[in-house]
Amino acid sequence: MKLGSGCGVEVNGFEGENESLEIEDAVRVLLQGLGEDINREGIRNTPLRVAKALREGTIGYTQNVEDIVHGALFPESGLESGHAGGVGGLVIVRDLDIFSYCESCLLPFKVKCHVGYVPSGQRVVGLSKLSRVADVFAKRLQDPQRLADEICIALQDGIKPAGVAVVLQCLHTHFPNSESAFLDSNHQGWIKSLVSSGSGIFEDETADMWSDFMGLLRFRGIDVTQACKRDCTVWCPSQTFSKIAPPNLMMTTAVTSILRSLGEDPTREELIGTPARFVKWLLNFSSSNIEMKLNGFCQNRIDLLKSGGDSIQREQHMCSELNISFWSQCEHHLLPFHGVAHIGYYSAEGINPIGKQLLQSIVHFYGFKLQVQERLTRQIAETVSSVLGEDVMVVVEASHTCMISRGIEKFGSNTATIAVLGRFSTDPLARTKYLLSIPNSAKNL
Amino acid sequence: MKLGSGCGVEVNGFEGENESLEIEDAVRVLLQGLGEDINREGIRNTPLRVAKALREGTIGYTQNVEDIVHGALFPESGLESGHAGGVGGLVIVRDLDIFSYCESCLLPFKVKCHVGYVPSGQRVVGLSKLSRVADVFAKRLQDPQRLADEICIALQDGIKPAGVAVVLQCLHTHFPNSESAFLDSNHQGWIKSLVSSGSGIFEDETADMWSDFMGLLRFRGIDVTQACKRDCTVWCPSQTFSKIAPPNLMMTTAVTSILRSLGEDPTREELIGTPARFVKWLLNFSSSNIEMKLNGFCQNRIDLLKSGGDSIQREQHMCSELNISFWSQCEHHLLPFHGVAHIGYYSAEGINPIGKQLLQSIVHFYGFKLQVQERLTRQIAETVSSVLGEDVMVVVEASHTCMISRGIEKFGSNTATIAVLGRFSTDPLARTKYLLSIPNSAKNL
Repeated sequence: MKLGSGCGVEVNGFEGENESLEIEDAVRVLLQGLGEDINREGIRNTPLRVAKALREGTIGYTQNVEDIVHGALFPESGLESGHAGGVGGLVIVRDLDIFSYCESCLLPFKVKCHVGYVPSGQRVVGLSKLSRVADVFAKRLQDPQRLADEICIALQDGIKPAGVAVVLQCLHTHFPNSESAFLDSNHQGWIKSLVSSGSGIFEDETADMWSDFMGLLRFRGIDVTQACKRDCTVWCPSQTFSKIAPPNLMMTTAVTSILRSLGEDPTREELIGTPARFVKWLLNFSSSNIEMKLNGFCQNRIDLLKSGGDSIQREQHMCSELNISFWSQCEHHLLPFHGVAHIGYYSAEGINPIGKQLLQSIVHFYGFKLQVQERLTRQIAETVSSVLGEDVMVVVEASHTCMISRGIEKFGSNTATIAVLGRFSTDPLARTKYLLSIPNSAKNL
Repeated sequence: MKLGSGCGVEVNGFEGENESLEIEDAVRVLLQGLGEDINREGIRNTPLRVAKALREGTIGYTQNVEDIVHGALFPESGLESGHAGGVGGLVIVRDLDIFSYCESCLLPFKVKCHVGYVPSGQRVVGLSKLSRVADVFAKRLQDPQRLADEICIALQDGIKPAGVAVVLQCLHTHFPNSESAFLDSNHQGWIKSLVSSGSGIFEDETADMWSDFMGLLRFRGIDVTQACKRDCTVWCPSQTFSKIAPPNLMMTTAVTSILRSLGEDPTREELIGTPARFVKWLLNFSSSNIEMKLNGFCQNRIDLLKSGGDSIQREQHMCSELNISFWSQCEHHLLPFHGVAHIGYYSAEGINPIGKQLLQSIVHFYGFKLQVQERLTRQIAETVSSVLGEDVMVVVEASHTCMISRGIEKFGSNTATIAVLGRFSTDPLARTKYLLSIPNSAKNL
């Protein structure tokens, strides 16, 4: 039996197994390549956490669809053609939240899975099995179309229905890097891919049954008008890079070893460039590579103090920069987290005397490291304070991949952190006023 | 280590353990009390499935918060009062989807959990642990306020922060019964309870930190204005029944034995009436108790055919009754599912010649049984066809508790089924036209 999220049945969790130890060794190489001290308390256990997360996230390699479907096929009369529930008797489970790992870059991607079938042979399958089978193939290194095809084929073989249809809405993170992020504030958001796969009576993409399937998606508010061509272009943004010279041979070799430990063949065509691409992503978060970007800060601060000397007695107004997007990498799991920072401060003029771009640079600077959100928030506040005065409040909202991709699967969850300095730490009304100025962000994250 | 949803690590899954065998025996008594043949193929393995589901769903009794938090406390400098991230340095995880079992009636209830704390002692906790700890207490028989209090106390003890705050938005199903459902079509929807619990600097409900916490919830679109009184009235609708005479002593005794097998004390005050209440719920779905309600059907049909004799040659118009709500009980897991049925047909007048109420009665009749959604859909179609003519299309949309409460945890997922007869089975355009007439239902389910 497969046991589920948070049910918390104790299992050994891969600890101490050879494959895990190999991954841990490789992760230590990666951390050192990022310039980290692998004995630092916050990351000392990161190799073990990464090994567990990766092996859980790719456990589909060891799973068998027959074991899942077996025993969950139920006899159900009246399912032959000509009866209600015959042809036209579509069963579809919509809005299954799953995630997978991109085989091009090793980053997780999110999937809304819609899966259906038309029963035949007087047989239906337990609804939860559609979800379990989808998960078996999601928990491997994938690309969207192959994921859809593999789910489809497995259900067709396992249930032997009149046909199976699968539609996946996939979301891949953009692939910002520490250089472009300083130039381009628009790196937030997702790359979308909509793919489908059909077997049996769904094999023909123009089959009438597809209209029924899409009709059932439509009134759940799912837009499938741009749907579902097999020849969709490569979606992983790392693929658009021109040939990447191996950025760091030791790190690349370490990632190759991780692929092998997960049961993959690193010489498989789609995986050949993956280690270099993952290392390129990871190196965005090396501990020191963009220090120089902030060199101008002290001078700015001095200039400001000079020019602001005559405004010290003027009334101070609460100001705000909202929704400064950022990317970061969780130091506990080496998984991305991303979100927005809101920065509140006081200024005599009621306007930002240094411009939004410098605040963006500060946020990016602290994002592009191995981080925890609590520290990121505090560091932004302290640095902003050195530029914009002592009264600073920073709110960071972020989605953490580690909250969805390690058996926790809290897809909608979102973490908010606050750091306050000066007046904001002593005046609750100032905090409340600032929080009221932040717009509803539920849609953004 | 705790392993997660769909990760599918093989564990024994309680099978064959004494507690499970006791629950299986009790479930057989319940099935027989419902008038079911316990050897029928669809429910032959239901006792085992129910035992596993209940033991997974209450696994929190065997879990230990210290095991979870241990090793996930990370040193983080700059978290003392006076620094950014000191007082005011709130960390909050929002929108955790969890579920629990109501101790009053044994039905599952859904929870949106928002949990936060203010770090102290230069120590933060891994974000996922807030979710894991919430789950430990959710996976027990609960009521909302105690659930909030237990999460709060456990995190305060485990992390020793400046304070912990917990806000739960709980949704309990209504408690329709087969009698009232025929009278009251408005039994759909949820009973809501909003509760909070605070410790440390959140212990005082008027503390400033609560404003910060509520502020962070507000801009995620979470309405907490009616918030959070401890003295909220009893929320479980079964509690509003006047004293229930034990409806069936053997069934009630069986439920008491299940409580004991789960590690609960059936003589605990809050549980004394639970077996009788659960049996009362379950008896709604006994295999035969409302047959008589449909006695009028044949006569209706005959009258219709007579009165409609002269309209047979007239043009037929597609008609529809949308959003007929229903409750049912999944025969595989004895867990509720609920949703809406949409019924399409043709009539000469373009109006429903028999009234919406009779269609509602048909839907309720087939809902109030142990069911699977596929069969429910077909049965509605066939019966409607006997009343309204051979061209019938039925779409059923439902949320299945068994998709969220057994380690699958696909909270947003939703199942749609179609059954077609006559013209709808041969004319794809008729199906498409009917599907286009169904409004977006994503909000309803």
